[in-house]
Amino acid sequence: MIKKLLVANRGEIAVRIIRACREMGIETVSVFSEADKDSLHVRLADEAYCIGPTPSSKSYLNFTNIMSVATLTGVDAIHPGYGFLAENADFAEICAACNITFVGPSPEAISKMGTKDVARDTMKQAGVPIVPGSNGIIKDIEEAIRIASQISYPVIIKATAGGGGKGIRVARNEEELVKGVTITQQEAQTAFGNPGVYLEKYIEDFRHVEIQVLADNYGNVVHLGERDCSIQRRLQKLLEETPSPAISEVKRKEMGDAAVAAALAVNYSGAGTVEFIYDHNTGQFYFMEMNTRIQVEHPVTEMVTGIDLIQQQLLVAQGDKLQISQEDITFSGWSIECRINAENPDKNFMPSPGKITMYLPPGGLGVRVDSAAYPGYTIPPYYDSMIAKVITYGVTREEAIAKMKRALSEFVIEGIDTTIPFHLRLLENETFVSGHFNTKFLEIHDLSQK
Amino acid sequence: MIKKLLVANRGEIAVRIIRACREMGIETVSVFSEADKDSLHVRLADEAYCIGPTPSSKSYLNFTNIMSVATLTGVDAIHPGYGFLAENADFAEICAACNITFVGPSPEAISKMGTKDVARDTMKQAGVPIVPGSNGIIKDIEEAIRIASQISYPVIIKATAGGGGKGIRVARNEEELVKGVTITQQEAQTAFGNPGVYLEKYIEDFRHVEIQVLADNYGNVVHLGERDCSIQRRLQKLLEETPSPAISEVKRKEMGDAAVAAALAVNYSGAGTVEFIYDHNTGQFYFMEMNTRIQVEHPVTEMVTGIDLIQQQLLVAQGDKLQISQEDITFSGWSIECRINAENPDKNFMPSPGKITMYLPPGGLGVRVDSAAYPGYTIPPYYDSMIAKVITYGVTREEAIAKMKRALSEFVIEGIDTTIPFHLRLLENETFVSGHFNTKFLEIHDLSQK
Repeated sequence: MIKKLLVANRGEIAVRIIRACREMGIETVSVFSEADKDSLHVRLADEAYCIGPTPSSKSYLNFTNIMSVATLTGVDAIHPGYGFLAENADFAEICAACNITFVGPSPEAISKMGTKDVARDTMKQAGVPIVPGSNGIIKDIEEAIRIASQISYPVIIKATAGGGGKGIRVARNEEELVKGVTITQQEAQTAFGNPGVYLEKYIEDFRHVEIQVLADNYGNVVHLGERDCSIQRRLQKLLEETPSPAISEVKRKEMGDAAVAAALAVNYSGAGTVEFIYDHNTGQFYFMEMNTRIQVEHPVTEMVTGIDLIQQQLLVAQGDKLQISQEDITFSGWSIECRINAENPDKNFMPSPGKITMYLPPGGLGVRVDSAAYPGYTIPPYYDSMIAKVITYGVTREEAIAKMKRALSEFVIEGIDTTIPFHLRLLENETFVSGHFNTKFLEIHDLSQK
Repeated sequence: MIKKLLVANRGEIAVRIIRACREMGIETVSVFSEADKDSLHVRLADEAYCIGPTPSSKSYLNFTNIMSVATLTGVDAIHPGYGFLAENADFAEICAACNITFVGPSPEAISKMGTKDVARDTMKQAGVPIVPGSNGIIKDIEEAIRIASQISYPVIIKATAGGGGKGIRVARNEEELVKGVTITQQEAQTAFGNPGVYLEKYIEDFRHVEIQVLADNYGNVVHLGERDCSIQRRLQKLLEETPSPAISEVKRKEMGDAAVAAALAVNYSGAGTVEFIYDHNTGQFYFMEMNTRIQVEHPVTEMVTGIDLIQQQLLVAQGDKLQISQEDITFSGWSIECRINAENPDKNFMPSPGKITMYLPPGGLGVRVDSAAYPGYTIPPYYDSMIAKVITYGVTREEAIAKMKRALSEFVIEGIDTTIPFHLRLLENETFVSGHFNTKFLEIHDLSQK
């Protein structure tokens, strides 16, 4: 049984974890950087300790200081949230060595999924569809040319150690391929200390559809349906929804089964997300990557399934068997999440940190707000610019959209710029409303006002 | 189709109605007293007009001024909320005469249910169980004595024109009866201009269980299950929940059928609530009264049924047929509402109006807040002291309670006293947690801290 837990994170996800703990009767310890001493996650926790200066490397990524607090406060477990140490296999190992439960999968599962070509191979062996491409790292340029002509152009060159949009290059013909492989290898050596690259068919017209899974330590795995995260700007998700307007019940089952197979292949435990490229022209889907942690957009899944994912993470981490079977999981209604960032959408999404002089989140039926903001809070310029997630629930997509428009229109945040006006324009956009769009939506539709 | 609607109310219910309208694409007009010019319902509406000075009789009860605004702004409909004009048959008639839709039942239905002995007779004829007592107004003291000995003491003497705890007196023997009838008749004549009183058996150990009904103009009536409102202080409800910890599925159906029969007996239309005395010792239930309007505690029903009651009121009012049949209505999970009042629970619930210097409502999964408060808002001393409703939802009662404790513990309201500490003590009380209590709970358990 987890009795006391350290939250190794900040912002809304730290608040989200503290809330789940409080409801389960688990004591909480927050840690914070010098820039975060007035943060809500500091105020809400039972105890809170400064772990270092503002740069993340010295605080939220500082193993030594975090483990010192964990040991001194006598916690049983550490929840890493998302980002920071959430997918750091070394940190998970250190927790285990200190006899503290890391709320997440094993270091082995984190490593396997974190190394792109290993993950690709593992998925291939598990029968999870992968994008056609090379078998692992390409040996030389001749192999690259041969594979590219087999799978046909355009192709994408990916550094195996890359991630988050870095170490990726598209080639539309042999000339671009030869040049691209060389440059990407050099860049990858410099940036990640690993020059390995591999090739994949480049699918241009697709939707980002991901499957939430939940697994225990006894080989039980269930999936909780999909989330459609096709509304992205420079690979950053801005709006997520479930169900996906593009996914049928049959397809949901196929993708769900594939995601469960992916989790089983790495002896996964806890909450995880298998991201897929969904080719809505052919109905084919391909493994993209697995996020071995809770995701920002997890609330929409909670809204339609009624399952508290953070509580499930904690139950699994303390060794409980999953109490939910696949047959128990039903999906009802529609849920949308808008990420509200402290950015000016009309100035190229320029960050807008500073003091929130007035703050009043929306309320009422079908509206949920996950946030660490409050009136008078000063948003530091050092971290992620997301300051609130507004999640709505309706019987239909139309209703969820109407609720979101209502909620955002009454959300008061003064003193800084936010992406609320951008989201209101998005929710009015005919293509968005139609449900027919792909990940290039925001490249095609310029929703900023100059 | 309603295109523009006037909200003839203030506070959280005005905000609730505006939200529903916004989601349905209906324009809104707010009205306000001089004391309410900075209220949230004024800010959120598309248009807002002052209708008079602070005393309700000169503003929120001022037919002439409200109808002037309605006519000048060209609204199709008026929603009265609860309180003020919500159960005023004359106002409903004036709306009809002005060709403006009154969002509520017919003036006839309001009148029949508003006159206690008529309601009792109507229910008796409709086969709805009523508390044993006199057939209508008692003629003389001899009749009172005869009936009292038939139904056995204690009995309750009720003025037919009374309500809200006024014009009511308990008699435990003949002497008290003789005295009580005379005094109550005199008081009723003075207070209500109608000396009529009737007798009922006084049931002391009961739960307040009410059934939500929804009816259209075409004779279709459904019920949406019960709400248990046994936690009361001086007949004021403080916490409501659904389902009731005391009601079985069989009993729910019996009470639901009785409530539907009650609605049919007065050709009811819209949302209404049939309140019952539930004798948990015998399993018998008796008609108490019908509230011919939306109720404060309607959100708990919305949480477990997924049905938006305000939207349903508007749809019925504009002449739509009910799209929901009894078979469609399913109940899932548990929901609790705590009424947060600007009162000091440790000083005999003394009102605590004034400026809210800091305000941050709770958020996250399973927490809903309906409120008209905001940071810097000054609560005027002239109206009801309720400033927020916190509604939680969980799979079980235990979970709904845990969520409420979490939500209330993080609710920040500074500058005034509130009943939050009282609710936190209530939620910890063993008897409350057990679910076994009656309407006298707060007389027996003193939860204030002196």
